Amino acid sequence: MSTGDLKIAVDTIWVLVTAMLVFWMNAGFGMVEAGFARGKNCVNILSKNFIVFAISSIAFYLLGWGIMFGDGTPFMGLKGLWMVSGADNSPATGDAYSGVYSAINWATVPIWAKFFFQLVFAGTAATIVSGVVAERIKYISFIVFSFILVGVIYPIVGHWIWGGGWLASKGMWDFAGSTVVHSVGGWAALAGVIVLGPRFGKYGKDGQIHPIPGHNISIATLGVFILWLGWFGFNPGSTMAASVNDIARICVTTNTAAAGAILSATVVSWVFLGKPDIGMTLNGCLAGLVAITAPCAFVSVFSSLLIGLCAGIIVVFSVIFFDRMQIDDPVGALSVHLVNGIFGTLCVGLFAEDAIMSGTTGNGLFFGGGMTLFMAQLTGVITAGAFVFFISLVAWFMIKVLLGIRVSLHEEIQGLDLGEHGNSAYPEFLNRKPSYTFLSLAGQSTGTSSRSNSEQKVPVGV
Amino acid sequence: MSTGDLKIAVDTIWVLVTAMLVFWMNAGFGMVEAGFARGKNCVNILSKNFIVFAISSIAFYLLGWGIMFGDGTPFMGLKGLWMVSGADNSPATGDAYSGVYSAINWATVPIWAKFFFQLVFAGTAATIVSGVVAERIKYISFIVFSFILVGVIYPIVGHWIWGGGWLASKGMWDFAGSTVVHSVGGWAALAGVIVLGPRFGKYGKDGQIHPIPGHNISIATLGVFILWLGWFGFNPGSTMAASVNDIARICVTTNTAAAGAILSATVVSWVFLGKPDIGMTLNGCLAGLVAITAPCAFVSVFSSLLIGLCAGIIVVFSVIFFDRMQIDDPVGALSVHLVNGIFGTLCVGLFAEDAIMSGTTGNGLFFGGGMTLFMAQLTGVITAGAFVFFISLVAWFMIKVLLGIRVSLHEEIQGLDLGEHGNSAYPEFLNRKPSYTFLSLAGQSTGTSSRSNSEQKVPVGV
Amino acid sequence: MSTGDLKIAVDTIWVLVTAMLVFWMNAGFGMVEAGFARGKNCVNILSKNFIVFAISSIAFYLLGWGIMFGDGTPFMGLKGLWMVSGADNSPATGDAYSGVYSAINWATVPIWAKFFFQLVFAGTAATIVSGVVAERIKYISFIVFSFILVGVIYPIVGHWIWGGGWLASKGMWDFAGSTVVHSVGGWAALAGVIVLGPRFGKYGKDGQIHPIPGHNISIATLGVFILWLGWFGFNPGSTMAASVNDIARICVTTNTAAAGAILSATVVSWVFLGKPDIGMTLNGCLAGLVAITAPCAFVSVFSSLLIGLCAGIIVVFSVIFFDRMQIDDPVGALSVHLVNGIFGTLCVGLFAEDAIMSGTTGNGLFFGGGMTLFMAQLTGVITAGAFVFFISLVAWFMIKVLLGIRVSLHEEIQGLDLGEHGNSAYPEFLNRKPSYTFLSLAGQSTGTSSRSNSEQKVPVGV
Repeated sequence: MSTGDLKIAVDTIWVLVTAMLVFWMNAGFGMVEAGFARGKNCVNILSKNFIVFAISSIAFYLLGWGIMFGDGTPFMGLKGLWMVSGADNSPATGDAYSGVYSAINWATVPIWAKFFFQLVFAGTAATIVSGVVAERIKYISFIVFSFILVGVIYPIVGHWIWGGGWLASKGMWDFAGSTVVHSVGGWAALAGVIVLGPRFGKYGKDGQIHPIPGHNISIATLGVFILWLGWFGFNPGSTMAASVNDIARICVTTNTAAAGAILSATVVSWVFLGKPDIGMTLNGCLAGLVAITAPCAFVSVFSSLLIGLCAGIIVVFSVIFFDRMQIDDPVGALSVHLVNGIFGTLCVGLFAEDAIMSGTTGNGLFFGGGMTLFMAQLTGVITAGAFVFFISLVAWFMIKVLLGIRVSLHEEIQGLDLGEHGNSAYPEFLNRKPSYTFLSLAGQSTGTSSRSNSEQKVPVGV
Repeated sequence: MSTGDLKIAVDTIWVLVTAMLVFWMNAGFGMVEAGFARGKNCVNILSKNFIVFAISSIAFYLLGWGIMFGDGTPFMGLKGLWMVSGADNSPATGDAYSGVYSAINWATVPIWAKFFFQLVFAGTAATIVSGVVAERIKYISFIVFSFILVGVIYPIVGHWIWGGGWLASKGMWDFAGSTVVHSVGGWAALAGVIVLGPRFGKYGKDGQIHPIPGHNISIATLGVFILWLGWFGFNPGSTMAASVNDIARICVTTNTAAAGAILSATVVSWVFLGKPDIGMTLNGCLAGLVAITAPCAFVSVFSSLLIGLCAGIIVVFSVIFFDRMQIDDPVGALSVHLVNGIFGTLCVGLFAEDAIMSGTTGNGLFFGGGMTLFMAQLTGVITAGAFVFFISLVAWFMIKVLLGIRVSLHEEIQGLDLGEHGNSAYPEFLNRKPSYTFLSLAGQSTGTSSRSNSEQKVPVGV
Repeated sequence: MSTGDLKIAVDTIWVLVTAMLVFWMNAGFGMVEAGFARGKNCVNILSKNFIVFAISSIAFYLLGWGIMFGDGTPFMGLKGLWMVSGADNSPATGDAYSGVYSAINWATVPIWAKFFFQLVFAGTAATIVSGVVAERIKYISFIVFSFILVGVIYPIVGHWIWGGGWLASKGMWDFAGSTVVHSVGGWAALAGVIVLGPRFGKYGKDGQIHPIPGHNISIATLGVFILWLGWFGFNPGSTMAASVNDIARICVTTNTAAAGAILSATVVSWVFLGKPDIGMTLNGCLAGLVAITAPCAFVSVFSSLLIGLCAGIIVVFSVIFFDRMQIDDPVGALSVHLVNGIFGTLCVGLFAEDAIMSGTTGNGLFFGGGMTLFMAQLTGVITAGAFVFFISLVAWFMIKVLLGIRVSLHEEIQGLDLGEHGNSAYPEFLNRKPSYTFLSLAGQSTGTSSRSNSEQKVPVGV
């Protein structure tokens, strides 16, 4: 066996193992979102998080992969659609590779390794949406949107940045997907929540915000541990090769940003909210991980600490901001993925160092670079955001018209588990009988007296 | 270091990492089975799923490995029994390897890597049994059967197919064990459930079927995610080498079958049962994974999608079938592992493609092959099934006579956690006092009024 | 690419993947400790287990790494402190490596791979403490101690044994850290529990021991599965290279010790306590894993089975011993990590075999060696223990004086989730209202009548 063949074997192992870790993030999202929601909607959230990767697998196989990496225009790929068609003559061991996916020829692993790795990323974008629209969306409507997102919207933006499209030509760098994955998922979710509206009982007549605590913090915490582990696939795997120095340093930048964000989010919530709220600690971790996703390969370990510290502060105030705006995000995913996805993408423009990002076109503002790189990042953030938000809004609106988007108020109060699935997550622990049917269902402002006391955080409608 | 040595290092990493993923499936089975059972039997199920891998480790070390891979007759290995005896002169880097485990000489990794990989497979077969016999079997009886299964029954069939035995000579192909692992476990479980009988209260006097919902769908869903991840060890690891193109494609065929089965099982349950039941969605995933296990290396990605779609349909009707036959399988493991293990093994005879399975003897019916391969697969399914079912029936019966097999009705109603372990899984959530002791214990048909109302799915006996 | 470069790539993959598995153990500790505690303290325990790795990451980056591996004296490293300073000219591919971390030059992977691997080990030591001091320690006090432990105490002992310090010179062998990680964590925890005292209601006026059962055995069992998986990173990864024969055999010795300990702990609890208690089965597994940690690379598979069998017996009687001594360890971590960490370290002196530990200085007593190796092990156990216990006692005492160490009795009875975090882990399942405020809080001996009935294991204070 030649050293060239061996190198491909080593790279393939790395790509597949890290792809498995990213796949594993589906379990993490499932546990986080289920834990942060109420028990009466738990089966529904688990079902969404489970089926979404199946939908993603089919959509990316049929359409997404070809649109993202197929040869075509700077806007989207046109070749190699429909079930990953086109010749596979990778891995290239010396000879020039020619195929229809030339944008990803730089990676020498077999085409199915590339596909598998990119598939698990696509699935992540879709699962971000799940949490934001939780506890009131119709199951079928979420499924349909997920297909559109992974089959069309996500791969178009992916083509712009990773598929040799126009943003790549502009000099934008998004190493592991702060924009491609996280803020794309976030923008799609924001559009959804605007069409969908807040959960019943979340906001009072006079603008009061009623906390709706999650039903199971144990599995939510487990979920964040799973995601943290998965990120060691997400970021270091994005080399798509066992580049010795890069992958080791990326593990450390990734971890250090998470650590910094955990600490800053905890301190900020302790100081400003009075207690070290575990929800803020957990979302702090995710915020740091999202923020380091774009710059992880381009910055020093010390810079990753700074990025993490900022991300942890940002996420706390962002959660408060969205709540004030009455944008009801049950799990804080907008603050984690959208806001910190933007922040992380811009951090490339601030912290990238020439000495580390060898072969690239510029370095960050803080390291003597000009504005070129920063402006490319900003352009990417704005255009990707505008495109995804607008097209998602159209998609959600069409789903609303054609299928309906929201369960009935009766079903929402009773819990989606019974209405959508005929199941209960914990039939022995929870009283599954609807407790609110005696109430007037005329308006959002109706509620029990306990619900108006936000200090006590009494669970609503259980 | 020579390239030969490096290749072995790369292969060893792959085998060990994938073996770890298969080990991890033990956690998945534990969570699935515990989640689908009632809270009062949760400690017992967790204990079984936990201790079973310890039992398997000892049994396979003492006996199983030698019977499976030792040189001997076409029926079973005779050399290298008792604590993996015999010289270890692998890895073979050029020189001919000679030892007592010649059937597995093709794999060049060290003997302890081979042993570890095969051990985690053996453990899987045993853990399949655990779910089917749940909620009424005596702890000690399950332990003893597990030892017999992993020490003797499993390795004999394994020898036939993977150990150079008579079915391998017939030209049967079972890449990662649809038959060797899954239907062997399934047949052993079916024999057990026949000797054991259904749970108290499951079937009414007049043949009514009373659903007994699981107590914790969150951990059941987590369990299926764990198993899905573990299958990326199970199938691609079965190359026992970092065969670049194979392992990448096997990852994708494995995942695509799972995705197809999730969707078809969900749709079928939605259409035929009225709602997208999460139990069917989860078992659909496992069904697709079991079905692709034998053919994963021999079929195209598109074929894997078809196999998955079929598996998802099969599992739903199989669950209904076993319930109609009053074969009480609390977690649906017979439909997943036995039925789809058979289906998957036959799929090799239907979908295998020469272009992919280089060096093998035939291709599937759908790809212009003759009946030879299909008949070899069918022979394997029938003979392995008949052997395992019969010998397991004998083993279970002897256990029944010598140790007793079923807990007392009082203990079953009270819950096995208290009776078998003196523990409670959730002492703060569950009322641990037996609720049925006031009932006549004379017959299975006795029950509360709520239990006869299968629509409400009121948990029984909690 | 040269074979030298390829070897480093292979080694780096192995080190990073196993480091990720060790990182994953944080989730395992979190689930075990949360599951074995009461629901009212669940958020607090999860918070501690979550933030502790963030604290460890910062402390080890700032101080710990340099103290542990920096060039300096036999007592501690003095160079390369403060954010991993000093030149990084690893990996060394032929040329002599010269830097400030010469004690770890033997490993040829990049410095950030070494750092990441050592960081996840350091984090493990800190998380051991968390369980022992659970359910009564102040959140801030635990955080401060963790910083001291990982920043100063742990790396000093680590320097002695792994950093080229005086115990390494004495010929002590601790392959993967039975002493460096586990008994160091255990001694630090023992000091903490002495300063802290037992939980309210644990021990009666007349010395009765009141069992306080864990609230969620499902997640506790999941946690042990996670830890078992993580140990396949912990032990085989400690080669810090893909040493083909070593890593495969270490996987098997690790697993076999766990299996043996599971069985012996289960049998012993069955015989001596009357039932196969799941807590003992789970802690048996961990005991076996801790015990094999030091000797895993130096002993035969058969010896690992013996070590495991002994560890499982030791842990059961150790749990009973600490309870008799009124040393209140809610999760049994002292018996697992401290006692079996000592036992495992001594096992090197008993079972090590020259044929296996090539290049080392001696073999164990049972294999014809003299007392030299055993005495070196004993010296390490005693000096490391004395140092860590004493300095931790000082640290805990200073924390008690400066910050306070224990929550108020009112808060302890009400649960730390509300008092420390303002959260509840299961707001829908648990009655979060304090149930004991009507009691006299004057003394530990006050309790409800149910609490004095230890047979019933009624949960206290929920």
